[in-house]
Amino acid sequence: MEGAGVLHQMFRLRWPAWKALGGERQAAIVREAQPVLEEMEKSQSALFSLIGHKCDLLLVHYRRDFAQLNQAELRLAALDLWDYLEPTTSYLSVVELGLYDSSLKEYTRMAESGIEPYSPEWNREVESLLARQREAMAPRLWPEVPPRKYICFYPMDRRRGEEKNWYTVPMPERQRMMREHGMVGRRYADEVKQIISGSIGFDDWEWGVDLFADGPLVFKKLIYDMRFDEVSAIYALFGSFYVGVRVPAAGIGELLAGRLPDQ
Amino acid sequence: MEGAGVLHQMFRLRWPAWKALGGERQAAIVREAQPVLEEMEKSQSALFSLIGHKCDLLLVHYRRDFAQLNQAELRLAALDLWDYLEPTTSYLSVVELGLYDSSLKEYTRMAESGIEPYSPEWNREVESLLARQREAMAPRLWPEVPPRKYICFYPMDRRRGEEKNWYTVPMPERQRMMREHGMVGRRYADEVKQIISGSIGFDDWEWGVDLFADGPLVFKKLIYDMRFDEVSAIYALFGSFYVGVRVPAAGIGELLAGRLPDQ
Amino acid sequence: MEGAGVLHQMFRLRWPAWKALGGERQAAIVREAQPVLEEMEKSQSALFSLIGHKCDLLLVHYRRDFAQLNQAELRLAALDLWDYLEPTTSYLSVVELGLYDSSLKEYTRMAESGIEPYSPEWNREVESLLARQREAMAPRLWPEVPPRKYICFYPMDRRRGEEKNWYTVPMPERQRMMREHGMVGRRYADEVKQIISGSIGFDDWEWGVDLFADGPLVFKKLIYDMRFDEVSAIYALFGSFYVGVRVPAAGIGELLAGRLPDQ
Amino acid sequence: MEGAGVLHQMFRLRWPAWKALGGERQAAIVREAQPVLEEMEKSQSALFSLIGHKCDLLLVHYRRDFAQLNQAELRLAALDLWDYLEPTTSYLSVVELGLYDSSLKEYTRMAESGIEPYSPEWNREVESLLARQREAMAPRLWPEVPPRKYICFYPMDRRRGEEKNWYTVPMPERQRMMREHGMVGRRYADEVKQIISGSIGFDDWEWGVDLFADGPLVFKKLIYDMRFDEVSAIYALFGSFYVGVRVPAAGIGELLAGRLPDQ
Amino acid sequence: MEGAGVLHQMFRLRWPAWKALGGERQAAIVREAQPVLEEMEKSQSALFSLIGHKCDLLLVHYRRDFAQLNQAELRLAALDLWDYLEPTTSYLSVVELGLYDSSLKEYTRMAESGIEPYSPEWNREVESLLARQREAMAPRLWPEVPPRKYICFYPMDRRRGEEKNWYTVPMPERQRMMREHGMVGRRYADEVKQIISGSIGFDDWEWGVDLFADGPLVFKKLIYDMRFDEVSAIYALFGSFYVGVRVPAAGIGELLAGRLPDQ
Repeated sequence: MEGAGVLHQMFRLRWPAWKALGGERQAAIVREAQPVLEEMEKSQSALFSLIGHKCDLLLVHYRRDFAQLNQAELRLAALDLWDYLEPTTSYLSVVELGLYDSSLKEYTRMAESGIEPYSPEWNREVESLLARQREAMAPRLWPEVPPRKYICFYPMDRRRGEEKNWYTVPMPERQRMMREHGMVGRRYADEVKQIISGSIGFDDWEWGVDLFADGPLVFKKLIYDMRFDEVSAIYALFGSFYVGVRVPAAGIGELLAGRLPDQ
Repeated sequence: MEGAGVLHQMFRLRWPAWKALGGERQAAIVREAQPVLEEMEKSQSALFSLIGHKCDLLLVHYRRDFAQLNQAELRLAALDLWDYLEPTTSYLSVVELGLYDSSLKEYTRMAESGIEPYSPEWNREVESLLARQREAMAPRLWPEVPPRKYICFYPMDRRRGEEKNWYTVPMPERQRMMREHGMVGRRYADEVKQIISGSIGFDDWEWGVDLFADGPLVFKKLIYDMRFDEVSAIYALFGSFYVGVRVPAAGIGELLAGRLPDQ
Repeated sequence: MEGAGVLHQMFRLRWPAWKALGGERQAAIVREAQPVLEEMEKSQSALFSLIGHKCDLLLVHYRRDFAQLNQAELRLAALDLWDYLEPTTSYLSVVELGLYDSSLKEYTRMAESGIEPYSPEWNREVESLLARQREAMAPRLWPEVPPRKYICFYPMDRRRGEEKNWYTVPMPERQRMMREHGMVGRRYADEVKQIISGSIGFDDWEWGVDLFADGPLVFKKLIYDMRFDEVSAIYALFGSFYVGVRVPAAGIGELLAGRLPDQ
Repeated sequence: MEGAGVLHQMFRLRWPAWKALGGERQAAIVREAQPVLEEMEKSQSALFSLIGHKCDLLLVHYRRDFAQLNQAELRLAALDLWDYLEPTTSYLSVVELGLYDSSLKEYTRMAESGIEPYSPEWNREVESLLARQREAMAPRLWPEVPPRKYICFYPMDRRRGEEKNWYTVPMPERQRMMREHGMVGRRYADEVKQIISGSIGFDDWEWGVDLFADGPLVFKKLIYDMRFDEVSAIYALFGSFYVGVRVPAAGIGELLAGRLPDQ
Repeated sequence: MEGAGVLHQMFRLRWPAWKALGGERQAAIVREAQPVLEEMEKSQSALFSLIGHKCDLLLVHYRRDFAQLNQAELRLAALDLWDYLEPTTSYLSVVELGLYDSSLKEYTRMAESGIEPYSPEWNREVESLLARQREAMAPRLWPEVPPRKYICFYPMDRRRGEEKNWYTVPMPERQRMMREHGMVGRRYADEVKQIISGSIGFDDWEWGVDLFADGPLVFKKLIYDMRFDEVSAIYALFGSFYVGVRVPAAGIGELLAGRLPDQ
């Protein structure tokens, strides 16, 4: 089940060119950029200062659809600030709720009542099921950016190896493993807010994972713990990890002056 | 069976240099580029605004032959606009119709009538079969760009692993798997228009897939569903995914001003 | 068990631009940078001159938390010297002590006393165990940069292959292999000072390894010897290796003049 | 058995810088470059306009030895035109004729006459065999560039996997598979002229393949057909594919003006 | 057993910038660089003109220790010529003699005399054995650059696959395979001078191989022959290959003028 469109944009700051501008020009550029970022913040965009060389800034956008994401990109590109940002990577996905358990129950019920899979009746039942789920899940399908200090983002795949292949595992097996996997996550639910988005057909990995927490160590504990549950140990492949500190749009000037704003 | 030559060209826009030009020079550059793009649009080229850092613009060209594709590239390179486009990647292929079923039936018939494979008679029969198929398939071999709002492009391979190797699977097995695979696709035929092109000998993956639809979510559903059919689960390897919004050639000026044109 | 946050920053020096500055401007840039580096040296940062094209300079920072690491990055980026440094790569991790043996003993004891895993009582016991270990281990959790002439840094993973997968090996097996692995390391304890940091959830490999010694050959001997112990032979995957010579912050001017300072 | 040294040079044209020169300077640069390219054409160099972003120009050189190839590179680098070409990749190899069948027959005969392998007598016999073969094969060992409109170039390896490893297959098996592979090629001999060069010890793949034909579709058919023969299906690994249109040296000016010369 | 430190430095020449300098400035730069390169030549550095796009120049340095290699790098970086060289890659290693046979014999003897492995006595015996071997091997441990016309350099690994893993093969098996491998090399000893250096802990592959010969074809023959011996067929993984022509330091000016100096 899908909700908000999600775009992660990673940038390296062109420090030498930026510093060469002098304070007056820098201030003018910040004056143009800050209100745009503040407005985007209200539409569920958030800015992070990343640690390490991969990028300096991360912008995360949650939007109603992909055309809005594209429009957000274009609007940023039109800012003077853009000339001092070098795009290093990005990630396009859509918020996704895995409803393995409840869906399976419904599908089983439908099959047992003799409804032909993919028949018009089947499709109507599925559509009605999805509508009920969508309403119940609206707050999670259309999330706000959680107000935590740290973010951890990474993309991942389910393995499609020659011997170990998630896509050839029978549904009940996959369901069981996902349930055990979810139980590890639930132990961290207070400390870590997690938003999963799907990117099959949209980007180069199958899922994107956003974790939000007040300190970074819990990211390591959670992911390390999960690494031993069956579905992760055998079937999870991980892309690059990005860790950053939240910076409110109002702090962009301070960040560009080389200081991490207090929170 | 092969039809139109296909070239996908991906570009990043050099925003800082473009914005530094000022409105008058920008307008002149658009005045030169727009009629060329409009003319190309009539020869089955199409422009898309891509989401994410991989590229900003995608140009898809369907042409009679490869020399015409090369000529199209050269003509674009001669535009002033070209100086503000940075080629990031491209894909060269030829529209291809897999006629597993009907061809197999014919080949079996020919073999049963005792025609020696690759003998002059065999080649004549094959040529005549292909001619009949080519005529019937002309609209799909020489396609127009479907007038949908979104595109999804990705290249793919059939796996040639040490254990799981498509090219060592017997023909009837391959035929059966392709038939099942096609049935998944058919469920989406109304919502998604699909153009498959082959690139063995032309580019670094074996096939390129263009999907066209009015919204992007159906790309995810279709590809996710297919991921569980046997031929995809075991034998499909995927390259990078590119998702974009159609921009008519007449909208190039608006796009270069940082606004996604209405459709 | 986690301690200091660790950031490795690798830079290539833009020699042509640097040399074009002339002596006076170079001296001014060094006068600005040297006190900052000297102050950072007191907070457990260290500078190394690396051998080979991968990078010219390596800065290693050990800090109380990630926000301090991010602040250190930003402070360096604000230096004029920064304009002559090109970031090539980096590594983010946290000092980690593997307490396989003592922890296992405790967990076994707790399980035997009938404490339910992950129950509130279990969590209290774990917290109290960790607190005792943390105090005993403080000097190793919050290390100073060892005062040796050479550094060797590399990231590594435990293999998650289709057949050989560390994360599906039972705990006692892993414990036995790690004990044998540790015995190889102990033979080199006098010659090589080793700091292990974990990067699951933080960077693209699972661990970072810093080795410090008075000469480089012992790096090769140690790593070669370990390559044959079971856990390394079967389960270790290695990233890039970085080897460098320590340069005190006070020697930055000499290094930038093209001379490796005496030690 | 080895013949001509072969160098493939791929270049991207720096269109913006080139176009900024103005007609007079462009003409002067072409006047300098064209006679050099024409002279090289007589020494078996050829120029192609490539399709796609990988490169714009491909130069193929066949020469007596590697020092001559290096000298050709240096001579081109000295041209003013060179400043508008960006080398993207290259390939170094030597024309090679696989004489599996005839050589095996000879080696078997020698072994049966009781000649000790690698003894002086064995080496003399081998030398004499090679001399006879070399004379017979001279036109294929020292080829001219075939006068066809299209080129397809790609490098390839024989697989050295953990299970499927060409280099552990017994000689008679390899010989049988190569013979079957050759029979596929022979079906296309009229339409496609093929030059195989070996690059073990010279470049990053084991072989380079040049195909020349009057149209590009036959490249796809040939390579697709071969993909199912045993040696290719199981043991062939392919690098990047490059497809281009022949441009006579006399047409360089027209190409640089953005027009593909007629042929 | 280890000897000289080895650094390979690969550079692309910035031809456009170099050619734009004009003859007088070029001559001044050569006048500064040539004596430094000539002096380095006496300390076992050598210059090669490489074929293909990977790099134009290769500098190989053999030195007493790594600090001297780092100092050599810094000295070159201080030259004006450096501004026209773009480092593309490098390799850091140490000359290594594999003494599988004689060492094994000694270790067996020591074990049989009941000396506890890694006991003080064992270490003393090993140290004394190594001292004797080091003296006998000095000319090979501290090599001069062989005065041949061509070089071939490549890095390699021993495979650590899930099934085929060199580091889990018992010592006597490894010894037997290395002995057979050495016999192939011995057949080429007159034509090819080979220097093996180890890079475990220093660079991204485990070994570097330098081959020197009067013509390049023998590189291909040697490496092709070896590809079929057991240890190479199953356990060898190869990096990039670099092939070049020796250029005496005195010929640097001629090379930079676009001519390969006679030898």
